[in-house]
Amino acid sequence: MTRGVLLDLAGVIYDSEIAIPGGIDAVARLRQAGLAIRFISNTTRSSKQRVLERLEAMGLTVTNADVFTPAHAAREWLLRNGRAPYLLVHPGLAPDFYDLPDRDKRAVIVGDAGEAFTYAALNDAFRELSAGAELLALATNRTFRDADGELSLDAGPFVAALEFASLKRATVLGKPSPEFFLSALASMDCPPDQAIMVGDDAEADIAGALRAGLSGALLVRTGKYRQGDEKRFDPRPTATVADLAAATDWIIARRD
Amino acid sequence: MTRGVLLDLAGVIYDSEIAIPGGIDAVARLRQAGLAIRFISNTTRSSKQRVLERLEAMGLTVTNADVFTPAHAAREWLLRNGRAPYLLVHPGLAPDFYDLPDRDKRAVIVGDAGEAFTYAALNDAFRELSAGAELLALATNRTFRDADGELSLDAGPFVAALEFASLKRATVLGKPSPEFFLSALASMDCPPDQAIMVGDDAEADIAGALRAGLSGALLVRTGKYRQGDEKRFDPRPTATVADLAAATDWIIARRD
Repeated sequence: MTRGVLLDLAGVIYDSEIAIPGGIDAVARLRQAGLAIRFISNTTRSSKQRVLERLEAMGLTVTNADVFTPAHAAREWLLRNGRAPYLLVHPGLAPDFYDLPDRDKRAVIVGDAGEAFTYAALNDAFRELSAGAELLALATNRTFRDADGELSLDAGPFVAALEFASLKRATVLGKPSPEFFLSALASMDCPPDQAIMVGDDAEADIAGALRAGLSGALLVRTGKYRQGDEKRFDPRPTATVADLAAATDWIIARRD
Repeated sequence: MTRGVLLDLAGVIYDSEIAIPGGIDAVARLRQAGLAIRFISNTTRSSKQRVLERLEAMGLTVTNADVFTPAHAAREWLLRNGRAPYLLVHPGLAPDFYDLPDRDKRAVIVGDAGEAFTYAALNDAFRELSAGAELLALATNRTFRDADGELSLDAGPFVAALEFASLKRATVLGKPSPEFFLSALASMDCPPDQAIMVGDDAEADIAGALRAGLSGALLVRTGKYRQGDEKRFDPRPTATVADLAAATDWIIARRD
């Protein structure tokens, strides 16, 4: 029986800030069917506040507690481990790291920094790691679908670069970290084997959710999806469907 | 019996364009002892012409055929495989890729591009790879000793980033590729088991040379050497010595 649904945002609900047709209506249908929903995003170019405003502008009402972002997980990690952040993130994400206490020890936090991934910034981060900082990856996605419709480099390649240089392994906070899926599910009291994930990233969303123990993971052919993605990573999606509207049909038809 | 010696350049002969004390004299002593010498460098910020001029200015006379660089190996690879270069290299290296024939198919060539490693340049290279280009790494060194005396990011981390994003494996042309060591040895008719490598990079120079079958590899404590490097990578150096002068003593004392 399915009681909870985790939805990715970019590529599932919207694309380049424009709602994907049928998506907002699909969320309403899932809610009407009595399913609990959380939004679980690896997008690290906007603050959570900005994400909520974007969804509101599309006609989707969500509360702060409905949305799980890696930056929030990183804040909790920093507080728990007594470290201050050294940010290698997009300027739009920086507000999520305001107001953290000063600490002697640091952690390099890597998000999808885009143009802010300069040689100088990467080299400074590498030197922080050499001096003892820990390495935190908000996400390890390889690519995202850029405004021109083509795939562009996401945070993952730059995390790989810093791991290679520093001989350190990153702690991954966003998808595909099992803890990230499980914390979203815990917030709605839903065990993983009664939950379905819907995403457009066959690796971070789909393989990640199935490894975390979710009962199903549906790959949508919107967003960054490219032909053949369903066979590129293991475990493979439970099903591959056109979009969130089709995923909703699939979930409601099989919910019991 | 030792008949041939391979010498790294940056960190062994010079540091930031300044000759390391005793190095030039050590090369003369190796030559006087009748040992054949080749210089084998992963430096990819200068053209080969510029490297030769730098050595000449330090009082070391070497011919074009004495120096092996990854760019030369890359030119040969491109001609052999019928591909045109897509360069992600330092501007100083570009002259080594002039005058190659036009081809439909391409290969992305990654060197130590320094500040030229912008997000836009890396993303363009990734899109070339997605469109079918092959990935060639001039080197995979993690770090080099920068002008300020600290370690900075070399080409390797950026090769790792592009491999991660494209799901392609790079063909490595410089050290630690066994072919690179063997082609330098072949040019002086010296079998690997009669040759010694001297370098400051425990991974690319030392482990690389020993994996290529050389009879010995001496790690010098100049250049990028950091305490503990001799234990960081396998196989470990045959010996660790102060500098090229000490390495020369070691080689001449044990040559038979």
